[in-house]
This record gives sequence, structure tokens and C-alpha cells, in this order.
Amino acid sequence: MKAAIVTVGDEILIGQIVDTNSTWIASQLSQIGVEVTTKISVADDRESILKGVRRGFEDADLILMTGGLGPTKDDITKTVLVEYFGGGMQFSQDTFERVTEMFTKRGITITDAHKAQFYMPERAEILENRMGTAPGMWFREGQKALCAMPGVPHEMKYIVSTGVIPKIQGEVQTVFLQKTIRTSGVGESMIAEMIEPVLKDHPVKLAYLPSQAQVRLRLSVAGEVGSEQILTGVLEKAVDATLAVLGKRVYGFDEDSLEEHVGGLLKDKGLSLGAAESCTGGYLSHMVTSVPGASSYFKGSVVSYDNSVKENLLGVKAKTLQAHGAVSQETVEEMVSGALRILECDVAIAISGICGPTGGSEEKPVGTVWIAVGNKDYVESKRFLFSKNRILNIQYAGVSALHLLRKFLSAR
Amino acid sequence: MKAAIVTVGDEILIGQIVDTNSTWIASQLSQIGVEVTTKISVADDRESILKGVRRGFEDADLILMTGGLGPTKDDITKTVLVEYFGGGMQFSQDTFERVTEMFTKRGITITDAHKAQFYMPERAEILENRMGTAPGMWFREGQKALCAMPGVPHEMKYIVSTGVIPKIQGEVQTVFLQKTIRTSGVGESMIAEMIEPVLKDHPVKLAYLPSQAQVRLRLSVAGEVGSEQILTGVLEKAVDATLAVLGKRVYGFDEDSLEEHVGGLLKDKGLSLGAAESCTGGYLSHMVTSVPGASSYFKGSVVSYDNSVKENLLGVKAKTLQAHGAVSQETVEEMVSGALRILECDVAIAISGICGPTGGSEEKPVGTVWIAVGNKDYVESKRFLFSKNRILNIQYAGVSALHLLRKFLSAR
Repeated sequence: MKAAIVTVGDEILIGQIVDTNSTWIASQLSQIGVEVTTKISVADDRESILKGVRRGFEDADLILMTGGLGPTKDDITKTVLVEYFGGGMQFSQDTFERVTEMFTKRGITITDAHKAQFYMPERAEILENRMGTAPGMWFREGQKALCAMPGVPHEMKYIVSTGVIPKIQGEVQTVFLQKTIRTSGVGESMIAEMIEPVLKDHPVKLAYLPSQAQVRLRLSVAGEVGSEQILTGVLEKAVDATLAVLGKRVYGFDEDSLEEHVGGLLKDKGLSLGAAESCTGGYLSHMVTSVPGASSYFKGSVVSYDNSVKENLLGVKAKTLQAHGAVSQETVEEMVSGALRILECDVAIAISGICGPTGGSEEKPVGTVWIAVGNKDYVESKRFLFSKNRILNIQYAGVSALHLLRKFLSAR
Repeated sequence: MKAAIVTVGDEILIGQIVDTNSTWIASQLSQIGVEVTTKISVADDRESILKGVRRGFEDADLILMTGGLGPTKDDITKTVLVEYFGGGMQFSQDTFERVTEMFTKRGITITDAHKAQFYMPERAEILENRMGTAPGMWFREGQKALCAMPGVPHEMKYIVSTGVIPKIQGEVQTVFLQKTIRTSGVGESMIAEMIEPVLKDHPVKLAYLPSQAQVRLRLSVAGEVGSEQILTGVLEKAVDATLAVLGKRVYGFDEDSLEEHVGGLLKDKGLSLGAAESCTGGYLSHMVTSVPGASSYFKGSVVSYDNSVKENLLGVKAKTLQAHGAVSQETVEEMVSGALRILECDVAIAISGICGPTGGSEEKPVGTVWIAVGNKDYVESKRFLFSKNRILNIQYAGVSALHLLRKFLSAR
């Protein structure tokens, strides 16, 4: 089954809101093997909505449409859909009772502005919306179907989960399986060179999803209902072949994050972590603590942005800073020692670099970052050269630090 | 001028990534008065890309296209565009030199997988991409133009800002003026109640852009070329009227950020800043240090995630923690004192709270956060109750801390 997602609303076209609705809908459909062939965003006017519907049906049998349903006068989707599918409007007693009850609870008096909401297209099946006033409307014409929903995310999600997905699942004729493999510390081209010769013999679809210092690989297979077992085997073989080539570059699957993975390693080994950050200014600690439960292994960190903090709190020697500079192997290694001592942690990680835009030199250009990881017995450090962009350098350095920490912990 | 945005990539259609590129592009175009009539997302295959281009040109004169340019074999946009616009591919010496230099710096050897990147469509004008390897390509056919760009956000943004916008600005026939007013510490509905009675007499368009603990207001006017002076006057009057009502709730305009604003206050007053963060885990420090030049006023911070760090480094008394808990006025105020002392800063800010998902109680539910700001003479603190969501709570707390710091500095 193929689907199109049509979102209605000027606020998307002027860039006022990020359209997370269609991302969520797409992920839900993809999980039950429905292929989303296109996404279309159109303005809040008759012509544009009609065009969106026509184009959606050129590409797909099912359209999921969000936005343009509600009390304000710019919400005209309902009228346009009645024009497209035919039939008239009729008073919906159900909708009237539910909305009246909801408004009464909130102390809102029903006015004329609300009344249009109680009229529903005759030809539409109503899908309940317990989260708000505008229900979903399911139109069907031959093999084609369209479901219109409000654009408020939690209302739309309620209708999709309780109304749309169950309807579709009865009709889907295909099976879709996927596995995402997550790597850190290797670039997209290098990964491509490693796995493409191997995967060419496997009948799977491959997609690369790169981000700062991480690449995700998605392998997927699709086929007819009844072929689940064969498809599972095909996918597993391809995943195994990929893992055999990539080895330790892989840290997890599907929704795993590097932060969580590293947290898991620390928990498994019963080790506590501390950090000393200079150029990343707290970003590494933020990544680590974005994981729920991080308090069971993360002691804390010292953001030693100024050299005085490196000296006074972390105990980096003045002569080290003088001889080698704040961005040097010697400094980050002393920062590790200092963090181990004052944060009383088992493992510490330290970062010092030049994120830019200024502060670079011939010898140490913007983007130069030193990272060290260590425990009381052993410290290892590495020099990186990232980009010219301050924010990116902070992100690259944070992810690379987690990558080095992962390697350090895995080897022990 | 009308534009369409076409995004290419399976990862959007299966809902694996949120498409923030098209939101950003739409906002940039809308700021220079270009109307985005449609947004289309298509799959990474020949048919779909061609369909996206055809539909885009049905609706608009200009297509901005992202995604599908890069080293791996699933990136076929370039080939399809050559098919659509005609002409062949030619070796681009410029691109070759730039990419080679970039790779050499990073210690990457150029392999066969990279070579396709050096060939560019004959018919395209190349728009420089200093952030990555794939440049933008500007195709023109009569009154129509298409610009294809890579999907990596910072690369796309570079090309739009330095290549696309200047090109378009030469061609736009309407005048579009806008001013964004930035506030912190007040909610959207309260702002609406304050300004709407005043602005109803001004012929400007108003849009609210709310985010965590901040609301931006965009006022805009549009008209024909030649009416710049009148429009400027109209806009200025509306801005003045808004400022008169909002007063100190406003901290800046347009691209100003709260981080930068606070940094500016510190610089003007010659004061240094330090922080002590518990539940925000480094996020506040990350916000402060995301501003270039923050090293001139930010000394550093202690992320005291574990209570041992609060005691040992910041000097929070054991009996304070015992009597009042880590999330209390007493604790955050002692954290401020500790930060002032050990970071040797003039002003310090401290945060301690329960970001969730666990750790809440009847008395202190998830979302409870205490924030204190002070110098050696005076400390003030405030209790907040944010949401149930961990990541949101971290963001709310970070922004609210900057808001309190702004108030503290402005009063002194």
C-alpha cells in the first residue's frame, strides 16, 4: 500500500513551524509497511488544497491530511473535501455532544463561531478525537481513501493511533522489515567502501543517515504477506554481513544513542564518569546528562573555560600551559588527572580546543581539538581537526569524546 | 516571486528525520518577501525527483531543492537534473581543488567513491559551499530557476545565505520589511493580551514565534517597490507602540539571542560569570559558550551532578542537603556562594531541580527547579515548575536562568 501525506497551513510554508506531524505519521506508516511516496505541504486555500489532494491520489491510494480543521475562519479543509468527494454536510449529534461536554468542563460558552464544527461531511466516516474538538474524517472512493485530521499534534496522534492504523492494518498486503545500524568515528564514504562490495549480493535496500561524527545505516526489505520468515532471514544475513565488516565501529541499533550506549557501558562495569571541558563549554556534560538515569554513573564536570579554572580547580600546571598552550596533549592529560582527583570518579574525559571563529593560528587552526580519556592507570589522547564552524566544532568534539570514551571502556 | 521547496530523500518519507531544512529555507524566503507556494518531499529515485521538479515548476518560478547530493550511490539528484535540464557533466577543477584540500587537511585519502563529486552539470552555475564537499547548482531555463543543494543543514544554509538569497534579492519586485521583537520571561497569551489592543490600529502583520520561556514577535509590512519610505514609517510606529507596552520584557531584536544579550551586558559592565549546574547538567554553560567571544566574560562552571561534588567542590553544607534537599532555595544559594569563590567570578548562577522522568515527589514533583543568581553582596532565587518532559525541563531551566541573570544584571 502506498500513502501520501498532505499538510495544510500557511504556517508551514512561511517557515513558522517545523512540521513534525508528517515525520511522525511517516514513521508510523513505515513501521506497518506502508510506503509513503510523497509529502506535500499546501496553503490554506481552496485551490491549493484541491491540488494537494489530486497530486496525493496520483501517487498513492491513501492520503493522510493534517491541518485546516478547527474553529477559526481560515480553516477550510472540510468545505473543500465536501466539494471534492461530493455529498453535503450534516449535523453530527455525536460531535455536538462531545464538544459541548468538553467546552462545559473548561467553562467555555458555545458561540456561533463554534457551530460549524458540529456539521460533518455526509460521506465521511467519523474517527473519534478524545483530545480535542475536531474529529478525523475518513473518506473513501473506490480503492482510494483520504483521512483528514486536525493539525494539533496530540490530537492527530490520537486519531492516527486509534482510528487510522487499525483501519489500514486490515488492508496492508505487504511486509516491511528494517534494521538501523549505528556507527561512530567513521565517515560515510569509508563506510560505503567497506560495506557496498559485501552488500551487493544481498537483496536489501540500504540508506545512509550521517550526522556529526556518526553514521546510521538502514537496511530494509519488503515483500508480500506470508513471506515474513524469508524476509527476516534475508535481513538478518545482510545485517550479519555488515556487522562482520564494520566490527567495533558499530555501537548499537535502531533507537540506541551513543550517550545511552556509553552510559550502559559505565553501568555494566560499575564505573563513574567525570569530565573537564574547555572549548565544548558544557556540551559533553549536557549530552551525557540528557540520558534519564545518568545520575547513577555521572559525577559531574568542571567547565574550565578560563585558564585560571584549569589551574586552580583542575591543577593543570602553569608551566604546562605556558610551554604547550591550553590546546595540547599535555594540558588535556593533566585535565584528566585533575578531574579524576577532584570529582572522585573512576574514568574522566577532557576536551580542549579552538572552536572559533577566532583564536586559531598557523600551528593550531580553528577546529583543532585535543581530547583525552583515562583512569588512574592509563590515559590516552587524540588530536582532531574539525571545521571552521563554532557550533559544529562543539558538536563534533562532544560526539568524538563519547566515541573515544566508548573505545576506552570497550577495551577494558 | 513564488518559490517551491523540494526535498529529496527516503529518510524524510519514512519519518526517520524531521525536515528542518525546508522550514529554515521557507523562513529565509519569507523574510525577503518570496512566497513559498508548496513544499514537496520525494524519494531518492529518478521518477520521483523528476515529478518533484515538474510539480514545483507548475506552482512556482523558483525551486529550492535539498538532499541527494553526496558521495554515496543513493545520491542521484545530480544525474536526474542533467537529464531534466539537458547538457552533460564536466570536470570541475574548482570543486576538485577545494575538496582535495579539505580532505588533505583532515587526513583523508581521495578514493574512487569521491570522484563523481568532481563532475558538475555543464548547464549549472556553481554556488560555493565552504562547509562541505558538494556545492550548490543553479540551473536556469527562461524565467524559471532551480537551485540544488546538499541536505546537510549547515552546508545548505551556507549556500542559501551566500549564494541563493543575493541572487533572488536582485529579482524580487515587492518590498517586504519586518522587525522581530524578542522577549523573555512572559508567555504568549499574556503578550497577546498586552499588545493586540494597541496593534489593531497599525496596518502591520503580526506573528508569534514562541519557544521555551521566550516569545518572538514578528511585525511585517509589504508593498510595491517605491513605497519603502512609507512602509518603513508604518513599521517603525508599530514597533514603537509594541515596545512602549512591553517595556523591559523585550531584550532584543531580529537575530539577537538571549545568550548574546546577557554576554553583552556582562561585557559592558566588565563583570565575569560563573555557573554551578545540577539538573541542567552543563546545558546553561553550553548556551553561554555557544556565543563567540564568551571567553572574555565566562570563567567556567561546576556541573555538580552528584551531591558529593556539591559538597566537596562548591562547599554546599552536608546539613543543608540533609535538611532541605538538593532541590531547595538553601542549596542553590550555597551553590552560588561556592561558584563565586572557586571560579573567582563576579556573578554566579546556580540551578538545581528534578528534570525527570523519575525523582519527583508530592512536595517536589518532576519539573521543580530552583535557580539562584548573585554576587558577593546579594543573591536572589526563584522556584519554577516546568513540565513532565526531561529535555524540555533542561531547556526551560537554561533559558529561565539566563532570563533571571538578565534581570539581575539590568537592575545593577
